Parts: sequence; structure tokens; C-alpha cells
Amino acid sequence: MNSDIKDLLLGVKNGDIEIEKALLKLKEKPFTDIDIAKIDNHRKIMQGTAEIIYGEGKTYEQINKIIAAMKNAGQERILITRLSNEKAEKIKESFDITYDKLSKVAYSGELKKPDGLGTVIVASAGTSDLPVAREAMLTLKFLGNEVKELNDVGVSGLHRLLSYLDDIASAKVIIAIAGMEGALASVIAGLADCPVIAVPTSVGYGASFEGVTALLSMMNSCASGVSVVNIDNGFGAGYTASMINHMEA
Amino acid sequence: MNSDIKDLLLGVKNGDIEIEKALLKLKEKPFTDIDIAKIDNHRKIMQGTAEIIYGEGKTYEQINKIIAAMKNAGQERILITRLSNEKAEKIKESFDITYDKLSKVAYSGELKKPDGLGTVIVASAGTSDLPVAREAMLTLKFLGNEVKELNDVGVSGLHRLLSYLDDIASAKVIIAIAGMEGALASVIAGLADCPVIAVPTSVGYGASFEGVTALLSMMNSCASGVSVVNIDNGFGAGYTASMINHMEA
Amino acid sequence: MNSDIKDLLLGVKNGDIEIEKALLKLKEKPFTDIDIAKIDNHRKIMQGTAEIIYGEGKTYEQINKIIAAMKNAGQERILITRLSNEKAEKIKESFDITYDKLSKVAYSGELKKPDGLGTVIVASAGTSDLPVAREAMLTLKFLGNEVKELNDVGVSGLHRLLSYLDDIASAKVIIAIAGMEGALASVIAGLADCPVIAVPTSVGYGASFEGVTALLSMMNSCASGVSVVNIDNGFGAGYTASMINHMEA
Amino acid sequence: MNSDIKDLLLGVKNGDIEIEKALLKLKEKPFTDIDIAKIDNHRKIMQGTAEIIYGEGKTYEQINKIIAAMKNAGQERILITRLSNEKAEKIKESFDITYDKLSKVAYSGELKKPDGLGTVIVASAGTSDLPVAREAMLTLKFLGNEVKELNDVGVSGLHRLLSYLDDIASAKVIIAIAGMEGALASVIAGLADCPVIAVPTSVGYGASFEGVTALLSMMNSCASGVSVVNIDNGFGAGYTASMINHMEA
Amino acid sequence: MNSDIKDLLLGVKNGDIEIEKALLKLKEKPFTDIDIAKIDNHRKIMQGTAEIIYGEGKTYEQINKIIAAMKNAGQERILITRLSNEKAEKIKESFDITYDKLSKVAYSGELKKPDGLGTVIVASAGTSDLPVAREAMLTLKFLGNEVKELNDVGVSGLHRLLSYLDDIASAKVIIAIAGMEGALASVIAGLADCPVIAVPTSVGYGASFEGVTALLSMMNSCASGVSVVNIDNGFGAGYTASMINHMEA
Amino acid sequence: MNSDIKDLLLGVKNGDIEIEKALLKLKEKPFTDIDIAKIDNHRKIMQGTAEIIYGEGKTYEQINKIIAAMKNAGQERILITRLSNEKAEKIKESFDITYDKLSKVAYSGELKKPDGLGTVIVASAGTSDLPVAREAMLTLKFLGNEVKELNDVGVSGLHRLLSYLDDIASAKVIIAIAGMEGALASVIAGLADCPVIAVPTSVGYGASFEGVTALLSMMNSCASGVSVVNIDNGFGAGYTASMINHMEA
Amino acid sequence: MNSDIKDLLLGVKNGDIEIEKALLKLKEKPFTDIDIAKIDNHRKIMQGTAEIIYGEGKTYEQINKIIAAMKNAGQERILITRLSNEKAEKIKESFDITYDKLSKVAYSGELKKPDGLGTVIVASAGTSDLPVAREAMLTLKFLGNEVKELNDVGVSGLHRLLSYLDDIASAKVIIAIAGMEGALASVIAGLADCPVIAVPTSVGYGASFEGVTALLSMMNSCASGVSVVNIDNGFGAGYTASMINHMEA
Amino acid sequence: MNSDIKDLLLGVKNGDIEIEKALLKLKEKPFTDIDIAKIDNHRKIMQGTAEIIYGEGKTYEQINKIIAAMKNAGQERILITRLSNEKAEKIKESFDITYDKLSKVAYSGELKKPDGLGTVIVASAGTSDLPVAREAMLTLKFLGNEVKELNDVGVSGLHRLLSYLDDIASAKVIIAIAGMEGALASVIAGLADCPVIAVPTSVGYGASFEGVTALLSMMNSCASGVSVVNIDNGFGAGYTASMINHMEA
Repeated sequence: MNSDIKDLLLGVKNGDIEIEKALLKLKEKPFTDIDIAKIDNHRKIMQGTAEIIYGEGKTYEQINKIIAAMKNAGQERILITRLSNEKAEKIKESFDITYDKLSKVAYSGELKKPDGLGTVIVASAGTSDLPVAREAMLTLKFLGNEVKELNDVGVSGLHRLLSYLDDIASAKVIIAIAGMEGALASVIAGLADCPVIAVPTSVGYGASFEGVTALLSMMNSCASGVSVVNIDNGFGAGYTASMINHMEA
Repeated sequence: MNSDIKDLLLGVKNGDIEIEKALLKLKEKPFTDIDIAKIDNHRKIMQGTAEIIYGEGKTYEQINKIIAAMKNAGQERILITRLSNEKAEKIKESFDITYDKLSKVAYSGELKKPDGLGTVIVASAGTSDLPVAREAMLTLKFLGNEVKELNDVGVSGLHRLLSYLDDIASAKVIIAIAGMEGALASVIAGLADCPVIAVPTSVGYGASFEGVTALLSMMNSCASGVSVVNIDNGFGAGYTASMINHMEA
Repeated sequence: MNSDIKDLLLGVKNGDIEIEKALLKLKEKPFTDIDIAKIDNHRKIMQGTAEIIYGEGKTYEQINKIIAAMKNAGQERILITRLSNEKAEKIKESFDITYDKLSKVAYSGELKKPDGLGTVIVASAGTSDLPVAREAMLTLKFLGNEVKELNDVGVSGLHRLLSYLDDIASAKVIIAIAGMEGALASVIAGLADCPVIAVPTSVGYGASFEGVTALLSMMNSCASGVSVVNIDNGFGAGYTASMINHMEA
Repeated sequence: MNSDIKDLLLGVKNGDIEIEKALLKLKEKPFTDIDIAKIDNHRKIMQGTAEIIYGEGKTYEQINKIIAAMKNAGQERILITRLSNEKAEKIKESFDITYDKLSKVAYSGELKKPDGLGTVIVASAGTSDLPVAREAMLTLKFLGNEVKELNDVGVSGLHRLLSYLDDIASAKVIIAIAGMEGALASVIAGLADCPVIAVPTSVGYGASFEGVTALLSMMNSCASGVSVVNIDNGFGAGYTASMINHMEA
Repeated sequence: MNSDIKDLLLGVKNGDIEIEKALLKLKEKPFTDIDIAKIDNHRKIMQGTAEIIYGEGKTYEQINKIIAAMKNAGQERILITRLSNEKAEKIKESFDITYDKLSKVAYSGELKKPDGLGTVIVASAGTSDLPVAREAMLTLKFLGNEVKELNDVGVSGLHRLLSYLDDIASAKVIIAIAGMEGALASVIAGLADCPVIAVPTSVGYGASFEGVTALLSMMNSCASGVSVVNIDNGFGAGYTASMINHMEA
Repeated sequence: MNSDIKDLLLGVKNGDIEIEKALLKLKEKPFTDIDIAKIDNHRKIMQGTAEIIYGEGKTYEQINKIIAAMKNAGQERILITRLSNEKAEKIKESFDITYDKLSKVAYSGELKKPDGLGTVIVASAGTSDLPVAREAMLTLKFLGNEVKELNDVGVSGLHRLLSYLDDIASAKVIIAIAGMEGALASVIAGLADCPVIAVPTSVGYGASFEGVTALLSMMNSCASGVSVVNIDNGFGAGYTASMINHMEA
Repeated sequence: MNSDIKDLLLGVKNGDIEIEKALLKLKEKPFTDIDIAKIDNHRKIMQGTAEIIYGEGKTYEQINKIIAAMKNAGQERILITRLSNEKAEKIKESFDITYDKLSKVAYSGELKKPDGLGTVIVASAGTSDLPVAREAMLTLKFLGNEVKELNDVGVSGLHRLLSYLDDIASAKVIIAIAGMEGALASVIAGLADCPVIAVPTSVGYGASFEGVTALLSMMNSCASGVSVVNIDNGFGAGYTASMINHMEA
Repeated sequence: MNSDIKDLLLGVKNGDIEIEKALLKLKEKPFTDIDIAKIDNHRKIMQGTAEIIYGEGKTYEQINKIIAAMKNAGQERILITRLSNEKAEKIKESFDITYDKLSKVAYSGELKKPDGLGTVIVASAGTSDLPVAREAMLTLKFLGNEVKELNDVGVSGLHRLLSYLDDIASAKVIIAIAGMEGALASVIAGLADCPVIAVPTSVGYGASFEGVTALLSMMNSCASGVSVVNIDNGFGAGYTASMINHMEA
């Protein structure tokens, strides 16, 4: 941003820009205010997350407005998470989106051709963890990552997980998704030599406390290289994994 | 107890026992009341736990009184758990006990020759879990069990645990002891084909909450055959494991 | 598994098996991967739980696929827990299953003739605990155990429980099921001389916290021989009790 | 208080009392303000608890000041709870008090001759619960109650408790004191036909959470007639029990 | 019960009762086992709660069976709590019951003429606490108590509560019902000179945690004479209050 | 209130008021008791909150009765919070109210012309926090405050918040509304020089625990000048902010 | 800050300021970095809290360095909170500070002459709450407020609190400090007509959970105008109260 | 590992290796068992964490034994975390280690020359967070990373943090360390375009719950790219950050 300010000051000095205008520019909001939300106009200024919409707690009308504002600002590819089937149907009437029922993820535009360092593994413990795994996978693919899914590899049947030792050894990042006791993250991190992002899920009953037990368990992993995101936050794990898989010197 | 009552009633019928005395007998307390505690006189009536003293929260004078009352009632072998080194030293002045500093377990008399169905494995995740593992092991040996210890076999280095697959496969009962994320119980239960008693430990920091995370994690084990005892309760696990290892047709 | 590896190596030495094939075999997955799940082909390899399906969080189509894969692998007897009535109706269209509405347990094939060491008691505190008690009972019967049910024997009316002292004294294992304050486990364990598996239930209101109070209470049992499974986990208790009731020298 | 106001108004009407004085009187503080505390001058105005000092969190100097102010106001009998041995020694230098180390209760003056409806039972589960039981007992005796103690009658050895069925049946109020799983309250309430005041204690370890488990357990008692006071609050239970034991038509 | 046993033994001695029969009698269950529940036949043996049915978690068919068994055993007056309107309608088809929608309390037979020591006050903080207050009130009236209700007397408008000082001063027992911060119990106990039974309610939102905050608050009352029952447990408070209001020398 | 008492006493002295009547007056309830609630007749006696009705947990009939009683007592302007759309429709049949669906706030009469010290800012972190923000805003406007809303200014896009630095600097009070991690309050308080009232919202999922995380986070604000109200309590924040914005010397 | 930027740009335009220097100035850090901390040089830029040091978790050497840096920047009056007696003694060797043992508050320079709108009341429930009350009071006096303390006015003896009705009615802000059930805040807010800042304290035992119960209770106050700060945060309450008491049009 | 197995099989086929020996080799433990611990002999087999010792809960004798075994296996560089000063002094008697008192980190050998992709920022909110920041920094340096520390940049004084915008923008990974409300992670992640690893610290008091509030807050970050490690786990954050900073194509 420094260079922007420098240009601005240079313009002021040269008399190309009036002081009042420069002052205004400095205070100018780098976003479009559509009342219910503020849309960033300049993707990659700040965090570059502008093209992602968190669908929960927004009406489809609100989401439509945000999509319109984004498209208006030139954004072609938009990812929408936690979008109910019902809202997706409504939005489809106005925009061309691809929707995945299992994960409740929608996107406008194409998935991005993989351009990361290598493969990201999305490993999940049981069949009920699939929606979260799928959310992570679609986020990763939207952001340009090669993904390999390992489903139903929970630690109570270790031989299933161990049969993928080669994949685990060659992954760049691994997302470990599990509810109940959440032991998958520790076991994978012990086998892998890359960052492991753990996602607790709300799968389970009784003392699983809708994912809290898995979250705490993952937080206490005795294996190094594990960091944790919120319960059921497949998107967050995918986003961070993509960042890591796109590290540059 | 039925037969006792039957004998009593028979005695009454035959006139061998007066009614008042029978009534008294029926109400007679099957324990010695030494004011601070009530000592069961007839071992194996009820639960047979009479020979075990929980040392915490009792003064050494109180413990001495209880030991004396037990010995008076003919009990030679007594196990004392959670006994501080300080109290143990004091008690040694009056009674002949063996004391283990690491686990804070003491016992009077000899350990019992193994007479169970087979071997009980006491597996613990890390070096800091050793005191609890030792408490379980001494309890098992006191109660007549063959024991094999597996130390430092936490799931972050799976190869260490897997090197004992044979032992795990042939055990009669396994006690799995772990703090932090407590994943050891699930992994072992997935590998074994016998009951697994999980003991969460207070080892860890931060979100381990002094063993609560491990407890919850173990409670939610996705592997079958796991049941859980209280945090750091090596004695309880050992006692139950011994019961199982002494099952009879 | 050792002998398998030995045979394999012997084959390699003898030239009966090519190295590449042996390598492949060693890595071969001992399960059928049907995408949504991985079905163990060799029952009793690992934990032998292959014939049990946890129905919650799976669609009936997924369950149908899993049953088909299991049957394909030669499994006749399959137990399905936490299966809603609705899904059960759908599954019945494809497979011949017996379904119990109260406990939401279904099974394919016959219950197994009792072949355990003795009788397992399933004791529950109140009428509302019956679904969990039934789940435990059906699991036990499916796994070949003689079962005796004691219903509505909560500790607030001790005479009801005490009237079964003989049964309690002669049981091989006891499952104690209770919500609210969960005191039943301690009282039974004090009366019995066998392992007691405590199952907290989500029965109650207010500070029962959907079973958490009962769970904590059971965890702190002052009686020895008690271990605990997750809230409402009748299956887990039944499975472990069956393991204990089938102990062999 | 009505009659006081009536007298006051009568006085004003008669001219015996000046308006300003009456106004003052109505606002007059019915306590002595000694800066660190406000001492009620008229025992039995309001709650009549004026003669009780909660010792924790007060220095012995502060307590001395409060005793002095009370004695100055004519109070002979004073009960001090949660008073450390150290402070008690210091206070003894100034006042004549009786101090009980086990319960940390002190009192000035004599215990009161029993004048209640009948006997109050103070039942406690284990040896470690004795300090709380003693606090309840001394409170009861200070307030004029006949007390019977039942120690070490925890539910894991039911025969000990059952041997006191007669006492339980004839009690006017029962205080049930227990840590760990706190089951004693439910069992006693099931046997008794009088109000049971449950006192959870901080005795236990791990998932006993310093009395919280016992508290929750007692809160969920399936037996009627149970109400609960704070953890380790022997005084509160004794005070309430005394109120009940002194009910008048 | 002693006299029963004495008679029995006497009968045995006299030869009036055969030993086998006496033995049987001693073991005889003092309840009717209707499979889903065990109905006490002898009201007032044990706790005398036989005439109360907790409706939640029972189907109307189960409740009907229990009512029938009770009536069969001679019981005319039965109280049913937590009975949904729907179930009440169904039960009315078989039995003559009075049903109160607000509190979900039903009863068969008449309310009992007040025969207690005096008046029990049922004070509640706000309009939303009325269902719990009503449950307490109906329980009290069913059990023969004079009741006075004080509604909407929460502490944020102290003048409303203070206007009932006379009633508070002359009450025999007070039930204080409040959600949110639960301060009502402390304030009332400070004004009264009789036992106060505090009932936290699940009224509130956010950090009221469905009554937990009120429960904890009441548990920590700085006023003496307060004991607490479970969240929304109007019945429990009423039952205990009735016991206290019926104390006899 | 003193002067009232003084007048009363003066009247008594002068003989203008009979003693019995004065006594009655002193005890007279300054509210109308409509059975389900007690309506304060004298607004601004005590807390002046008489014109506000908390709609949750009250039926529309109850609310209608309360409105009628209030209007009867001369109150024109009434604010109703947490009123469902359904109840609002019903109430509109009897009374003329303005209803806002988003915040579920209704009011009778006009909003009040701003008469405070300056502007109150209502800043909210995301689109889903709007209902709470609106409740705060309407409360403020009802109570006579100039309000400025800042929506969607969550801390993950700091430039949006920073673009309003001028507004923040000149505000008299700021209400900071946020769910999830609740960081908005701290950041705003660091930028502002006026009291900040933080409102946690139940927006979020997983470990947001329906607002508890935001509440705790706000409670621990490292910036001075922050105080916190209950989760989703937009009304409470608005009410307090209005008090502050109307401070007088 | 706008005008600063404007001046800067003007300078650039006029050629008075070089572009590079302007750029630097814009980035210039408005604080002194003393490695362990960053000291704001311009008091009242941003939040004006520069003169306050939080003493806990800092060594006396670190505090000395910060004081020195502050004094160097021209600050005479400095408030230090949570300063142990030991550290205070050490700091006194280098600087002239006034230290209050009870509240662990120290300050350099003079207390400020009251210049607020009126009186702030600091009301605390019991003797053990005095340290927190004192911290609030000293903060208020340091920041220029007239303060009135009301000690030992807990709600269990309502007459003590009610005797100060006049003070409560005329206060500008009230700080209500209480542990245990924290009811004081609600009761005072119901009596007052000004903002009430509630401070939960860690006073109590058992289920007071070191202030959490009081915090939750205060959070749920049924009286309007209450906002809450962290447990034992007397400083925070004093700081906010001072802000409110210094409101200007 | 595949190639190892292949070689082994090849050897068997060729007759170079006997079957029994191959079998043994396959089962051979790739670690040295020194009773109290199992030391991995082959660094970088599995997770490569072999050179790190967690010092807490181990005696200095145990640590000495582990160091000796590691050195024996050829390891020169060893990192020891959570090592008390006392133990460090003892270990220094036997080994040449560098010890940092603030972070309680020790290491044998040299720090590693930076060979990562770029700079890792370690940002901490306040002075009290320094020990955790230092642990992260030393871990990073030990593992070969360029590190930049930003101390005392908590969000309540945003200008301090904003003055480092350039550093934040150019970092490869950022570790954000904060106690209390933990808002730093969200704010930094909003400004940065790289992975942010959040470390909650146990700094704070009252409702900070020794870091739990910060942990939950960070878990709920509204900014993308944030993942979280355990409370005070500076090592874990450093280890993971180093992994990310050493990503290779």
C-alpha cells in the first residue's frame, strides 16, 4: 500500500492531485457498501477473501445482492459455503452456480486448475464426516489444489489407514477430519511429515458434545505439526491448507 | 445370604435360637465400627473390597487404626492406595508394609501368585503416565494377575505400539493409560480382541483440563470394547481388570 | 498375522510368489472399499466388529450398500444400531431384517444361542431408561449371551432392587443403566461381586444435562469394579459385557 | 414491623414525637456500622442470623471487631464458621471461645439445650467427609437440636447404612453428606419419610471436580424430599435443618 | 418393619409359618411388577411417593397401565406431573382426571383439605415463571397445604416484593421461583424467618443457560435457610415444602 | 420518596390523615396487580422501565392485558421486545403498534426526538448480527437518541472499520455487537475515547457456543472502558447507552 | 487525525516537506519501543490509557523501565494496578509512589480533584469484597471522581442497603461489587435510575466457581441499566464509571 | 519404507536372508527402549521429532538418560522444552546445553542457519505473553528459520500493530500469541495474506479461564487462514510454522 500513498503524495507535490481530493482518497473506502454488507472492490488487497460468501444467517436475497455486487466489481469466481439447498435453488434463478448438496457448497465460475506444490490429503474418520470432508475438498479445488480423499479411515481399524502410508508420506498438507474422540489427527500426524490441519466434527452423541470433545482432543495432540480449526469448519481447513500448498520462496 | 437366613429361621423353629436373639442377629452389623470408619469383618460378604484402604484424605493415625482393626479381624493382606511418602514412613513405624514411591501404593503381606486366565497388559502413552500405570500394575499383582507393561507407546509414534502387536493380540484384558488427547485407548481397542479399560490421566497442560479431555475422548471411543474409569484411577482399572481376568464359568 | 507374513516370505523364498506380488499383497487392503465406507472382508481380523453397522448419520441407501457388501463377503448375521423406524422400513424392502422400535436396533439373521460363562444382568433405573436397556439386551443376545432384565429398580425405592439380591449375586457381568443422578451403578456394584458396566442415559431434565450428570456420577463411583461407557451407549455396554462373559483361559 | 410504624405514627399524632425525629427514626439504620461490616443490633429482626460470623476471608482483627460489637450489643452466643486454627488461636487471646479443629467451627457461649421436634441425623459417606459433617453437627447443636451422627455409611457398602434403618425412619430431618458420586442422598431419601438436605463435598479426585459432580448428582435425585446446599456447606445444611426441626404450628 | 420380622419369626417359632414360606415372605416383593414399572402396593412403606407419576418419557399407554395398577391397589388420589396436553386427553378417555394446562399437572381424586402447620408461599419472579409456580402450588394443594401465590415479584422492582412483607413474615415455608439471575431466593430468605426452597427456572436467554445460572446463583445464596432443587422442579419444591409444613413433634 | 413520607407524617400530625389510613398508604402497592403481572403506575418511581415489555415467554393475550393496563395508567409510549411476528399480528388487532420484523421489536406511540448529549454508534461485525443491532438501534431511538449504524465492520477487514475513525472518535457511547470471537469490542474500545457497551451475539457455529465465546472474549477485553451485557441483549445495551447519553450534571 | 494528514499533504504540496519524509512520518510509530513494551508518547491519542500499568505478570524491573519511559515522556501521574507488596517495595526504591496494600493499587503523583458530573457509588456485598471495592475507588479518585463507599450491603440483609436509598437515588453511576450469587447488582439497579456497572468477585466457595456464578448472575440481571466487567476487575469498573461520570455534551 | 520391504523380500528370494531373520527384521523395533522411554534411532523415519524432549513431568535423571541415548544414536542437536531452571542446572553438570530462563527452553548444539522460504513473524499481545513468544522463537531458530518478533502489539492500541503493516505483508507465516480475549489472531489474519498460527496464552484473570477464552476466541476467528494450537504451546506453533516455512515443491 506504501507505493499507493507514495504515488498519491507525488501527485500532490506535482500539483496533479488536489489536496482535498488526496485527503478524500486516503479516506476512501476500498469497498462497496451495499448496506447489509461491505464488498471489497480490490481482491487481494487485504486478505483476498473477497470472493467467498458465508451463506449461513443470510437470506437468499442478501446473498443475491452480494453476488451481484461482486460480479459488478469484476469477480467471476465466487465460493459460497453453508448454503441450504432451498436458498441454492432460489439463487440459481438469478445466477449460474454449481451446487453440492452433501457439503452445501456452491460456486460460480470454474474450479481452478491445480497450481500448488503438490497433493493435499483430505482424510476423514467415518461416513458421517463426509459433508465436512467434501466442504474442505471443494474449497481446495476452488482454490487450485490437487486433492486426494481418504474416507472411513478412523483409528479403530488401523489397517485401513495404514494401507495409505505412501499417500500420507508424500502429501504436502493433510486435513484430518473426525468427530467422537478425534484421534485421527494425532495418528496421522505421527505418520506424516507435513502440516496436519485438524477439523473436529459434530458427529457423535452423548459426551461428544457436538464436536467439543474432538476439538479438545485435537488441541492436545501429542504429535507435532497439528493445528486445529473450528468444529465442522471444512472451509477454514481447506483455505489454510491451500495457503500452505501455495507457499512461495 | 439366603442360607444364613434359612439357618437362622431353622434355629428359631427348633427353639435353638430365641426370637429376640434372631431379631438382633438379623440386624447385627457385619462390620466393626471404629468411629471414624466401619470395617467389614467378613471379607467377601458384599464386595470383598474390605482389604483395600484409600489413603487420601485420611491421617496416618486413622489409617493405622483401620489397619489394626483389619488385622484384628484376621486380614493379612492389605492394599493402601494414594498414600503419601510421609504417611507411609509413619505407618512403617507400626506395621510392616511395602511402599512404592512412584505410584504411592503400599501393601501389607505378599503380592498374590498369578491365578488369572492370562496376562493383563498395562499400556501407557508417555513417561509422565508411569505413576498411574504403576498403580494399576501393583493392584493387579496384589490381586493375583500376570502383568505386562508397555510404556511410552503413545500414538504419535505408532511403530512403537505396533511392535507389540503379538502381546496385544494375546492379552486377556488391556488397561490403556493416557493423558492429553487420550487416543491410545481407541487405537489399542481397534487392534485388540479383548476388553480395554481406559484410564485418562491428568498429564498435559492447557486444554487438557487435568485429564478431562482424555476422559471425554476415551468415552467417545469409536472402537468397541472400551470402558472408562476416573482420571488417574489406576487402582480402579486394575481392580476391574483383575475381576475380568478371574472370570469363571 | 505373523503366520501370514511367514507364509508369504516362504512363498517368496520358494519362488512360488513373485516379489512384486508379495509386495502388493503386503500392501493389499484387507477391506472392500465401497467409496462411502470400507468393509472388512475378514471378520475377526482386527476387532471382529465388522458385522455391526452404526445407523445414525447414514442414509438408508448407504446402509443398504454396506449390508450388500457384507453379505457379499459372506456375512449372514449383521447388527444395526440407532436405526430410525423410517430407514428400517426402507431397508426391509431390500433385506430381511428384524427391527425393534423401542431400541431402534435391527439385525439380519438369528440371535445367537447363549454360549457365555453365565448370565448378564441388564438393570435399569426407570421406565424411561428402557430403550437403552433394550439396546444393551439385544446386543447381548445377538452376541450369544443369557440375559436377565431388571427394570425400574432405581435407588429411590431400594426394596425393589434388594428383592433381586440373588440374581445380582450370581451374575457374571452387570450393566447398570440410569439417568438423573446415576446412583444405580454404585449401589449395584456395592452389592455385586462381578464387573459392572455403567451406562448413563440422557433421561432427566434441568441439571441432568442430557446424561452428563449421570456420566460424571458413575465415573466417581465409590464402589470398585465399575467402568463407564458413553451416554445412552447400550450397544457399547452390551458388547463389552459380552466380551467379558466369553472370557476363556 | 407494622406495629412499630403504627406506634410511631401514633406518637406523631399525639405530638409525642416530632416529625423530623420520626422521619429520622424511619430511616434509622437498625445496625451498627463498624466500617468493615454492619452489625445487626436487634437479633431476630430480619433473619436472626446476626450471631453467626463467616470466618473465611476476614482477618482475625476484623473478626475480633465484629465479636466485640456483637457482645457490646448484648449477644452472648456467637458461632464462627470456617475459622482457621491460626486465627482461632489469635482470637482466643481476646475472647473465650470453644474451637473444633476438624470442622474449623468456633463458638462463644454454650451449646443450646435441644428444644426441637426430634432428632436430626447427620449421615456422611466416608471418613474424608467428616469435617463437613462435624460443621453441620456443631451448627445443629449450637441452635438447639438433638443430633445423631452416622459416619462412613456410603452406598458402596449398603449393609452399613441399612443397619440404621430404625434411626432413619424416626428422624425429623436428615442431612446427607457425600462427595464423589453423591448417591447417599438419593438412597437415604428413598428410605426416609422426612426432608433430606443434601450436602455435596469436595472429597474425591479427577472427574469429581471438587464437589460439582456430587452437587449435580444430588440436584437430580430421583427421590422426593431432597433439597441441596452448596458444596461443603455443612453450616447451611445445619441451619436449615434446625429451622425445620423447630417448626411450630 | 421390625415388628413384621418379629411377627414372622414368632410365627416360625410357633410353627404357624413354615420355614420355606417365611423365607419366601422375607424375599417377597412389596410391589406389583407390571413389566414396564414396579408399583408399590403399600403406600407409606418406604417413602410414600407411590401415588405420584412422573409423566415425561412415558407413553400414555404406560401411564394408563400404571394408573390402573395403582387404582387396583386401592389408591384413589394420584398426581401426575409433566403430562403433555395430548397424553392428558388420551388418559381422560380411560380415567377421570383433572388437568391443568399451564403446569401440565393432572390429578385423579380431590385436592386434600389443608392440614399443615400454616401457609406456604409460592413466590415467582416473572410471568414466564408461572408454569413452575403452578406446578409447585398444585403439588402443595394435592398434599394438603394452604398456599399463597406471589407472582411477578422479581427483585428489579423491589417495592412489589416488599409490599408483601407481612405474608413473608408469617409463612411456614417459602418457595422462591426465578430464572435469569435467580436473586429472588436470597432476597426473600433475607426477609423471612422460615425455610426457603429455591427453584431455578429455565426462563431467560443467552448466559442464563436454561436455568443453570439461576441454579448456581441460588446455590450460593448469602442468606441462610435456603436449599435448592433442580431446574423447573416445581413438584420437588412443593413436595419438600409440604413435608416441612407437616412436621410433627 | 422521603418527601412523600414527610407529607404523610405531617398530615398525621395535623390530623388531616387518620393513622389507619396513613398506615395503609405506607403499605399501599404502587402498582396495579393484574394477576399475571404487576404494572407500575408511577413511571419513574423506581427504575422508570415501566413502559417496556419483554415479549418472550408471554402469550399475546397476556401482553394485550399488560398494554391495556399501561395505557389505562396513562402511558402512551410502550416498547415491546422479542415479540414474534405471529404475536405482533394478533396484538395489532387490538392496539396500534409499529413492528420491525428483523429485530422483533414493536412500539406503541412515536419514537422520541433525540435529546441526548450526542450520537450513539451501533457497530456490528457481520450481516448476521443485524437483528441484534436493530434491537439496540430501535431501543435507542425510542429513548431519544441520535444513532449511527456501522454494519459489517468486523475485524477481519480492518480497513472497513478504520474508514469510520472520525465517527468513532466523536461518538458519545458505542455499542459493539459481534458473535464468533467478539474481537470488535476490544478493537473499537482501543480506537474510541468513550464507554463501549459490548453485546455478544449467538451468531456462529461449533465452538462459538451460541455466543458464550464472544461473551467471554468481550469480558476479557484488554481495552479499558468496555462493559458487557447478555448474549443478543441489544435492548439492554441500548437502554444503558441511552442512560449514559442522557447524563446530566 | 485528519487535520494532521491535511497539514502533511499541504506541506508536501508547498514543497515544505519532502515526499520521503512525509511517507516516513505517516508510518512513524507514535510510541516508544522499550523492547518489553511499547509506551505511547502522546497521552490521549487513541485511548488515553497510557498512564496506567497493569502490574501482574510483569517483574518490578520491567515496571520500573515502563515508569521511567513514561516519566521521560512527561507523564507525572501514573496508576499501577495488581502490584504485589513485594514489587511495590522494590519500586519505591526508585520512584515516589503511594501504595495501598488492600487493593494492591499504587500511584505516582496526586489523586485528581473531583471534576465529574456527580458522585459515583461503590457498593460491595461483604467484607471479603473490600479489596475489589478499594481498587475501584482508587481508580475513580485517581481519575477525578467524588466517591461514596457502601460496604457490607449484601442483599441477605436488605435493610442495610435500603438505608442508603437517598444516596442510591442521587448517584451518577453505581458500581455494584459482589461474589457468591451476585444479586446485589440487580437489586441496586432496580432501585437506581443511573447506569450500574457490576463487578463479580471471586469471593465464595464451592459452586461459586471463583466468581463465575456471580458473573453469570450479573449478566442475566432482570433490571435494566446493568453492564458487567470481568471478575475482580475493580479497575475496569472504575475506569468506565469515570468515563460516564465525565460525559460532556 | 516400501523399498526397505522390497529389499528384504529380494534378499529372501535370493536366499541372502533367512526367513526367520526377515520376519524378525519386519518386527524389529526402530527405537531404543530405555525402559522409561523409547528413543527413535532413525531420525526422520516417521515424524523426525526424535530430537525434541518435552521436559515437564520428567525428572532430570530421566532427561539425562534420554539425552545420553540420543547422543549415543548420533544426534548432536537436541531441543528441550518446558525445562525448569532447577533441572537445567542439574543437566548442565552432564551435558553442554544452552538454556533460556524466560521460555524454559534448552538446546544442545547450535541453532540452525535459516534455510526456509522467508521470515516467520512471532507477534505477541502483551509483556506477559513473552515467555510463550520466546518458546516459539527459539523453536523456529532451532529448526532453521528467520524470525521477527513483534512484542506488545495487542489490539487495544491498534496503531502499534499497524506500524508493522509492511512486515506483516511480507511474512511467510505468522504466529499470533495472545491471552485474555485473543483478538490479535483475527486482526493479524485480516491484514496478512499468509497462514496464521494462533497461540492462546494463560495470561489474564477471572473469566480468561487460564487461556480457555483466548483459545475459543481464536477458534472462532472470522478471518480465514487461522489455525490454533494448545494454550501456551509456543513450541507447537513454532514447529508447525517451520514446517510451512520449509515447504518444497
